[in-house]
Amino acid sequence: MNRIDLFKLIQKKKSFLCVGLDSDLNKIPKHLLGSEDPVFEFNKQIIDATLPFAVAYKPNLAFYESRGIKGMISLERTMNYLENFRSEVFTIADAKRGDIGNTSTQYAISVFDKDASGVSFDAVTVAPYMGEDSIKPFLAFPGKWTIVLALTSNKGSDDFQLFTDMHDTRLFERVLKRTSQWGTPDNMMYVVGATKAEMLEEIRKIVPDHFLLVPGVGAQGGDLNAVAKYGLNDHCGLLINASRSILFASAGTDFLEKAALEAKCMQEEMETLLLNNHLI
Amino acid sequence: MNRIDLFKLIQKKKSFLCVGLDSDLNKIPKHLLGSEDPVFEFNKQIIDATLPFAVAYKPNLAFYESRGIKGMISLERTMNYLENFRSEVFTIADAKRGDIGNTSTQYAISVFDKDASGVSFDAVTVAPYMGEDSIKPFLAFPGKWTIVLALTSNKGSDDFQLFTDMHDTRLFERVLKRTSQWGTPDNMMYVVGATKAEMLEEIRKIVPDHFLLVPGVGAQGGDLNAVAKYGLNDHCGLLINASRSILFASAGTDFLEKAALEAKCMQEEMETLLLNNHLI
Repeated sequence: MNRIDLFKLIQKKKSFLCVGLDSDLNKIPKHLLGSEDPVFEFNKQIIDATLPFAVAYKPNLAFYESRGIKGMISLERTMNYLENFRSEVFTIADAKRGDIGNTSTQYAISVFDKDASGVSFDAVTVAPYMGEDSIKPFLAFPGKWTIVLALTSNKGSDDFQLFTDMHDTRLFERVLKRTSQWGTPDNMMYVVGATKAEMLEEIRKIVPDHFLLVPGVGAQGGDLNAVAKYGLNDHCGLLINASRSILFASAGTDFLEKAALEAKCMQEEMETLLLNNHLI
Repeated sequence: MNRIDLFKLIQKKKSFLCVGLDSDLNKIPKHLLGSEDPVFEFNKQIIDATLPFAVAYKPNLAFYESRGIKGMISLERTMNYLENFRSEVFTIADAKRGDIGNTSTQYAISVFDKDASGVSFDAVTVAPYMGEDSIKPFLAFPGKWTIVLALTSNKGSDDFQLFTDMHDTRLFERVLKRTSQWGTPDNMMYVVGATKAEMLEEIRKIVPDHFLLVPGVGAQGGDLNAVAKYGLNDHCGLLINASRSILFASAGTDFLEKAALEAKCMQEEMETLLLNNHLI
């Protein structure tokens, strides 16, 4: 899905919500545990319930890998199910990968090349620490997106991302400046945590046109209005991720109603923001 | 395997060689492609051929993930096979993982907890970009090792790892200084590329006691003697990785002899270095 199509999808659904499928077997409702593949069953039902309100789904690969081969089967089934809605969902492998060139190519194959790996996402998250030759192999896949970690939502983001050089450039700013020369707003996005909304104004000066994938609204306490204020651009330019606040809105048999309600609430807030910013 | 046991193993085998299992299906000898699981068969034979000369094996997860579930089966079989030699090999998941706390815990489970994921490595490589709460969840697993990327062997390592603050501290030095406060030389190691051997002297001032996992000798052109000169400490403190130079020493039916010969050459060089440094 290219940038124009993504923006059209956002306009159609009046939403820029991404649902993070951090589908922890220990947290899904107990009544699903009897099914053959409880995590897939949970994902399928969550997707059905939230599809009117979300433009993207983001399986967090850690929650599948931690269950070994069984988990990878759940992931493959989830991706096959999402293919039924290919024109109306953008898919992100939240993987935070990054290694030297020939290894990054293998990681790219693992998330982009269905013939080889069994799954094909639109996008993958990558970590920038190893530099240009760790990121470019992902960009070599036509029609696919590379989402680079810039400023993350967790407390530890201060440890290195705010490391500052003698010109007052912080590491995350250097990451934005350099990596945006390797890709374009049509094949690269950035992860910027909602808990750092006040920094979005500066980030938008460096990358005005790129989409930003923003975790941290919801369970982590980020503020959607603050993110929108500085983050929206003329193609929307934001995908706001919510995981736990939707998936685990209820642990009971009403989990789907509660998940749908939570997603709908976020969609309605987003609709207002899109309207107020003349994007729909 | 703890640090004392690892040093004893190095002394017993007179080697600090780690064999990287970057087992690319497209590069393994053609005569193996008829077997049920060619990558596992290749790994099994490579392990048998190099076991007298190596103290560690390091599957590079990208090469397994790129083959989807089939690849994960090859990985699980390889790890089960290595369990036969548990007292004489140290195992490393080369995964370069790192995410916010609860996700890093899932990644740790995926490589450390066999009951959950089907595999149990002694160690995993992690990327430091997301900071303390992305690394500490790995350290919470008793008896396991976390190997933090510090200064990598690839060209792109210059892009961010050499980013320098106003006190002339480079990012990789900050990573070493901060992360070494979170773990100890008994549960943490660092990745330092052999192509940066001249920087090992400075690195050893910051982390004198930690083991360093050193890729880049062999195919990438790093120099073993230069690495040893500055990198060896009183517990050896080095694991030198070679992947392609051993695995693909020959593409023919003589690949095992050539792999064993390459591993033996490296072991003999290491034996000389251990002797000259009074470590055996």
